[in-house]
Amino acid sequence: MSVGLAIGGGGRETEDFVKNFILPLFKLKSLGGVGLEDMEDGASVPLGGGRHLIISVDSYTVSPPFFPGGDIGRLAATGSLNDVAVMGAEPKAFMDAVVVEEGFKLSDLRKIIRSMADVANSLGVALIGGDTKVMPKGSIDKIVITTVGIGIAEEPLLTLDRAEPGDKILVTGPVGDHGAVILALQFGLQVKTLKSDVRPVWPAIKALREALGEDLKAAKDPTRGGLAMALNELAERSGTTVYVEEARIPMREAVKEYADMLGVEPLALASEGQAMVVVKGDRAEEALEALRKAGFEEAAVIGEVRKGRPGYVVSKTPVGGLRLLEKPSGELVPRIC
Amino acid sequence: MSVGLAIGGGGRETEDFVKNFILPLFKLKSLGGVGLEDMEDGASVPLGGGRHLIISVDSYTVSPPFFPGGDIGRLAATGSLNDVAVMGAEPKAFMDAVVVEEGFKLSDLRKIIRSMADVANSLGVALIGGDTKVMPKGSIDKIVITTVGIGIAEEPLLTLDRAEPGDKILVTGPVGDHGAVILALQFGLQVKTLKSDVRPVWPAIKALREALGEDLKAAKDPTRGGLAMALNELAERSGTTVYVEEARIPMREAVKEYADMLGVEPLALASEGQAMVVVKGDRAEEALEALRKAGFEEAAVIGEVRKGRPGYVVSKTPVGGLRLLEKPSGELVPRIC
Repeated sequence: MSVGLAIGGGGRETEDFVKNFILPLFKLKSLGGVGLEDMEDGASVPLGGGRHLIISVDSYTVSPPFFPGGDIGRLAATGSLNDVAVMGAEPKAFMDAVVVEEGFKLSDLRKIIRSMADVANSLGVALIGGDTKVMPKGSIDKIVITTVGIGIAEEPLLTLDRAEPGDKILVTGPVGDHGAVILALQFGLQVKTLKSDVRPVWPAIKALREALGEDLKAAKDPTRGGLAMALNELAERSGTTVYVEEARIPMREAVKEYADMLGVEPLALASEGQAMVVVKGDRAEEALEALRKAGFEEAAVIGEVRKGRPGYVVSKTPVGGLRLLEKPSGELVPRIC
Repeated sequence: MSVGLAIGGGGRETEDFVKNFILPLFKLKSLGGVGLEDMEDGASVPLGGGRHLIISVDSYTVSPPFFPGGDIGRLAATGSLNDVAVMGAEPKAFMDAVVVEEGFKLSDLRKIIRSMADVANSLGVALIGGDTKVMPKGSIDKIVITTVGIGIAEEPLLTLDRAEPGDKILVTGPVGDHGAVILALQFGLQVKTLKSDVRPVWPAIKALREALGEDLKAAKDPTRGGLAMALNELAERSGTTVYVEEARIPMREAVKEYADMLGVEPLALASEGQAMVVVKGDRAEEALEALRKAGFEEAAVIGEVRKGRPGYVVSKTPVGGLRLLEKPSGELVPRIC
């Protein structure tokens, strides 16, 4: 038995791997807050008084490291800070661990580090530590960056189990841009009409918290596994049925075209600058307005949380039929993030 | 200009890279505690009331991933928790980000994760989150693991700048075992008489804190760059001259032999289960006793902190001469940790 690509795909196999392979070996899996078993984007260290330090770690292996709309540095800094933001935490600091291949161009490395700095500086986030390793030529393909996002959150944390029947589900903008761009590049296509959406989602979460308070229930950034995975996790963790209308899910034409051309489920394509959020049903319009004011102008209500068989995502297709939207399975694209 | 192995060596070039290449790009470099510019093993998030959350991140690229005395899992879990411990923090939690090559044996991956779990379980440390990525065959040599160590410390933190003239310098046991083992393996030698020293150093730090209180001044684990680098950092950060006697530095015969055979400075070889500690001069004997009781039976006083030209390490050689012990330069062994 050997490691297959799907274990790293962020879909069903990744989840199974963590549940069956990792969880049983560790005696302690949380510090009394959000921990490993919660399968959230970040973990929490309760600080007392309703405050939590939120920490997230992710390794970024994206290939190619430079792509329309960004590079691995922008992606790595943004990604872990987004994981912290969707827990409800204001990003405060991050750390990076860079593993780079001997012979990598120093000017490219500088661009990548500058991209990380741009993200941090724009958010007022401090780089408080890090690590650099070089692997001999041929032992790693160019560069892998691991980042640790650190933020502070006031309760309630925006965990998916807070969603209840009657809540509305929104996305902050068009989904799948990042995944489609990397997929197309990996298949050797020219990418001219689309770029990665990589950007911090904290401004969206902040605006929603200010506008809705505790009626902002939950948030998640639909990265690996895309919105399809995020919706399924929402349904599972909240023990509800999630209902979405595909015609209401914002998606660029170019993303649809690439997905069609390459034969993949577009809703499984990763976004790196959008959040899926759950709000109390009667606050959905206010949420949309707050998002638009914060610059997320293509935000949309895409569905709702319903009573029903727990853990199922029912999707109304553009032509009006219903389908079960399942967790993505298999590895669509390795090294997408 | 391209990236050379030395940038990842943990010696002079790594330090220069961080100072010249990374520091200037980031506006914020701390949260008011220990941050990037302090070049310590971990960073701190001040929690108020003299308490700090200590966080550390490191990527482990060791080759081979299984070696006498441990494996990359034991090393990765131990390493980041040791970085936290030498800041004076009790290790509480960790996170892991595993990047593994497609086709890696699942049974080997399980061994590695079990090793991480053994370390965590033995210290009462929780795994609170993580990430798994798979890279296609040929794009990474086997496995790289990044770990985040998390601990809580009461002030004073054991930073190197607390050392003062008159303080004594100790090591908790023989140095260089890990580096010598990996070096020998990489040169194709049989390694039968030596194993890596990889193990948690928290029991040593805890014993010293309990015995000496604030008279335990500073600590550092001499990993990449070995004791030579750690002593130089001590001299620089504290603005003192560090004096050591090589005859008093515990080192196994096998380490000396491998270093001699391979033509490397033995004091630059990494340890992964020892700490260098600085204590108030008149508490050195108590420190030794506390360490021995805690199971660090080969602990030794190796030198002292002196007034003098700041940033210099003067070493008395076994035959009685004096030499300047410089920061290691160049990449002795890539992928040693």
